[in-house]
Amino acid sequence: MNNISLSQICELMIETAKSSAEIIRQNFRQNDKYENKSSHIDIVTATDLASQQNIHNRLVKGMVEMGMEEGEIGFVEEESSADNISTHNFIIDPIDGTTNFASGIAFSCISIGYAFEKDIQIGVVLEPFSNTLYWGIKGEGSWVKVNSSDGVSAEIKLSQKIKPAKQWLVGAHLNGMDVVGEQFKMYEQIYPFVRGLRNIGSLTLDLCMMADNVLDVVFNKGCYFWDLAASSVIVREAGGEIYDSQGEILQYDWQDTKKKYHLISCHPEILGEVKKMIE
Amino acid sequence: MNNISLSQICELMIETAKSSAEIIRQNFRQNDKYENKSSHIDIVTATDLASQQNIHNRLVKGMVEMGMEEGEIGFVEEESSADNISTHNFIIDPIDGTTNFASGIAFSCISIGYAFEKDIQIGVVLEPFSNTLYWGIKGEGSWVKVNSSDGVSAEIKLSQKIKPAKQWLVGAHLNGMDVVGEQFKMYEQIYPFVRGLRNIGSLTLDLCMMADNVLDVVFNKGCYFWDLAASSVIVREAGGEIYDSQGEILQYDWQDTKKKYHLISCHPEILGEVKKMIE
Repeated sequence: MNNISLSQICELMIETAKSSAEIIRQNFRQNDKYENKSSHIDIVTATDLASQQNIHNRLVKGMVEMGMEEGEIGFVEEESSADNISTHNFIIDPIDGTTNFASGIAFSCISIGYAFEKDIQIGVVLEPFSNTLYWGIKGEGSWVKVNSSDGVSAEIKLSQKIKPAKQWLVGAHLNGMDVVGEQFKMYEQIYPFVRGLRNIGSLTLDLCMMADNVLDVVFNKGCYFWDLAASSVIVREAGGEIYDSQGEILQYDWQDTKKKYHLISCHPEILGEVKKMIE
Repeated sequence: MNNISLSQICELMIETAKSSAEIIRQNFRQNDKYENKSSHIDIVTATDLASQQNIHNRLVKGMVEMGMEEGEIGFVEEESSADNISTHNFIIDPIDGTTNFASGIAFSCISIGYAFEKDIQIGVVLEPFSNTLYWGIKGEGSWVKVNSSDGVSAEIKLSQKIKPAKQWLVGAHLNGMDVVGEQFKMYEQIYPFVRGLRNIGSLTLDLCMMADNVLDVVFNKGCYFWDLAASSVIVREAGGEIYDSQGEILQYDWQDTKKKYHLISCHPEILGEVKKMIE
């Protein structure tokens, strides 16, 4: 690691996310142009691209300043067609919740994961409007700071006091057309057993809110590596887990970084009960 | 009207909402106690009751100071079993989005409508966390102020440039068990035609966001008078409308203030297209 600590890299990622938050706030409700990607529900704005470019450049600059060679720094980025995987890898979603951003809903986030080789060790997620910062460092813990500028950091841990299902609030994000029927079927099955479903528009923030005991379970079908890399550290260090649809711990495919994942995320103690609901 | 103007009453309602916003913020994530009402998805917290009491008392005090007799002031309140309808009537939801509030999602609102006799003339809706204030006065218009303390007011008008359905973001709030099947069926029907559905957790704020061109259509089954009274003025003055499920302009039943409503809300020009989607 050339004597760079995880805390130093994490600090760089947080400062980087804050500078992209500024870009996102400046462009909010400014009639930003967007283009369709895979379908009319999948869009990219000029702000996504500006945020990604900013993150990429600042991370390279910061890592080089800490003594890395540029060739040792790799990237998996939502808005890039090719990856470049190396020793120190950053997995970037420049705006998770682009549809919210483009529609004027002030709820989205910047997500940056860091992996040493293929081992994800740091996650940083920043919501630019409420200025809520979540981060996690492998083996050290997860934290939230409600005002990222001058707020107080609090360690987050999933509650040990597991609530009955009737008090659960469930993150029920909706993805692509290919899984729409399955998603609705699953959410309709769950609905009578829980307090409520929420589809606020950012899967990454759903996962962070679960780590922070706001949501109790998160389901998704059809999400990507960059939606999960950062938040998976935050969830895991808070005592939760991200599972595949069979209930096995989700494994990322570094060969196919555009692969779509189906997931359940919750406290390990309630996984059995969750799986029963959707059988 | 004893020479009281609608603007004076509106000002009182706004100041009242701001003081309840303070109560809501102070009690947020403080492990507020809640009780179930009609079912496990329908809860009331001590903060709902404190907010309602505060609103009630301040409105009475303010109206009396403006020269009204107490007997001329009536109330329809979510958390009261009996109404008291008079000449100057306030329709109050002390927290719309109680489940969000109780779960720690910083997105809910105070909703206060004012009716002279049975004619609703003013609506005030305040989101206490982002501090976003919406208000409308019959015949005068609707406004939003993003920071209710020192922000700039902007008049809101539904865009005259109607977007194609593939760009619509739809407010898809979920209500009670009795209509769950119908709701899921409707949302599944709509999903392929639009950009996205959102269930953020406050129908009243969904309606205000539609008036402010963030959402394009709002559907709901099973909502109440106090969810709609204030926001219906804001929607209408911005150029939108609230319809019943047949597409007729929604009429309130002042005899049965606990009646449940099914609604579609949108710009009148797209009602035909919206109705076709759910046929």
